[in-house]
Amino acid sequence: MTRETYTLLENYMLSCMDDSAHDCEHVYRVLYHALEIAKTITDVDYDVLIAACLLHDIGRKEQFKNPSLCHAAVGSEKAFAFLTAHGFDAEYAARVRDCIKTHRYRENNLPESPEAEILFDADKLDVTGAMGIARTLIYKGIVAEPLYSLLPDGMVSDGSQDAMPSFFQEYKYKLEHIYDRFYTEKAASLAEERRQAAVDFYDCLYREAASSYQAGRDALAGLLADL
Amino acid sequence: MTRETYTLLENYMLSCMDDSAHDCEHVYRVLYHALEIAKTITDVDYDVLIAACLLHDIGRKEQFKNPSLCHAAVGSEKAFAFLTAHGFDAEYAARVRDCIKTHRYRENNLPESPEAEILFDADKLDVTGAMGIARTLIYKGIVAEPLYSLLPDGMVSDGSQDAMPSFFQEYKYKLEHIYDRFYTEKAASLAEERRQAAVDFYDCLYREAASSYQAGRDALAGLLADL
Repeated sequence: MTRETYTLLENYMLSCMDDSAHDCEHVYRVLYHALEIAKTITDVDYDVLIAACLLHDIGRKEQFKNPSLCHAAVGSEKAFAFLTAHGFDAEYAARVRDCIKTHRYRENNLPESPEAEILFDADKLDVTGAMGIARTLIYKGIVAEPLYSLLPDGMVSDGSQDAMPSFFQEYKYKLEHIYDRFYTEKAASLAEERRQAAVDFYDCLYREAASSYQAGRDALAGLLADL
Repeated sequence: MTRETYTLLENYMLSCMDDSAHDCEHVYRVLYHALEIAKTITDVDYDVLIAACLLHDIGRKEQFKNPSLCHAAVGSEKAFAFLTAHGFDAEYAARVRDCIKTHRYRENNLPESPEAEILFDADKLDVTGAMGIARTLIYKGIVAEPLYSLLPDGMVSDGSQDAMPSFFQEYKYKLEHIYDRFYTEKAASLAEERRQAAVDFYDCLYREAASSYQAGRDALAGLLADL
């Protein structure tokens, strides 16, 4: 890919993400992960891969405004339209579009090319380890969801049985289970290296929260009953 | 304290925090921390301590709307007004007010009673360990600040020299340095138990981010130059 093309795509990506300070750094990490994974795969089309990485989340704003939309579907069509409008041929634009369309985990919509698999894995890698924890917590702040829910007895729920959204719920329902969903061996091994940091953080946070509720609620009950 | 008084104060606190799903759980954790610390201190007035903990952040909304206001100053006056309006005597309301006024770290405004010191420590304890990391990340999401800044060479800054706000900057300027600022031995020892979780998380997150930029930017430069 020429630097000129890279800058064209990068600027379009940045213009689509102007409402969120951190999302564009996610895009660069996905691109960098993808290039690392690609080194272990033969016959990668880097023109397709780089464009697909840069543009994979350009449909986020539309999904945020209207949650019934899928950012992968919206973004893939935006990417196709942008590329063809800028003189790239339709076959190339379609290959980029197909990568973006399948980067989100959906059972009936799976990656069908090496570049699509690499993008999928690179994107999922950014939900592993400490980075996955950090991004999830930042998102909870944006959508005003809490760290945890309380059980009927007033103690902290570990998230595993929760119906209401919270950081602990998302950890138990999603973050904990992404480590065996990779297409490439390289991504799976990078994810595995990061796994313990996420497990340790969740365990520590749960222990800190649960222990203070346990001791505190007992002490409070005693004080309020006595007086 | 009677259950009736507790419920009156709790409901006032909740009414002041209706814009934020997680802040009221912070208040309960501070109360529970305070009761744990108070067990190690003689002559604690629990009526003052419990009221001060419940009401310590009721000025947050005013500070959020107008950052030139200090939530500790605003909240302390709101608490005094609420208590006297509800028939509590002015001497008691003033002692609660004074605890709240000094719970925020300011060199010219230090806690002057055991209850004020306990509130200060209980509040700071909630910025230590994994909880301090989680709360800071959620806040970065709310105020749309990024995880990290980039250095002039495009690599990830560790935060220690940053002028721009980010999670790494706040970790290096604030979170890393709170462990020696406690009044009570109990809070200092609870904080120390939590310290390693915060250090480990920061280290892992920095390593994950920095390593992907390093490898990725080299690979990208090679690809763009070659084509």
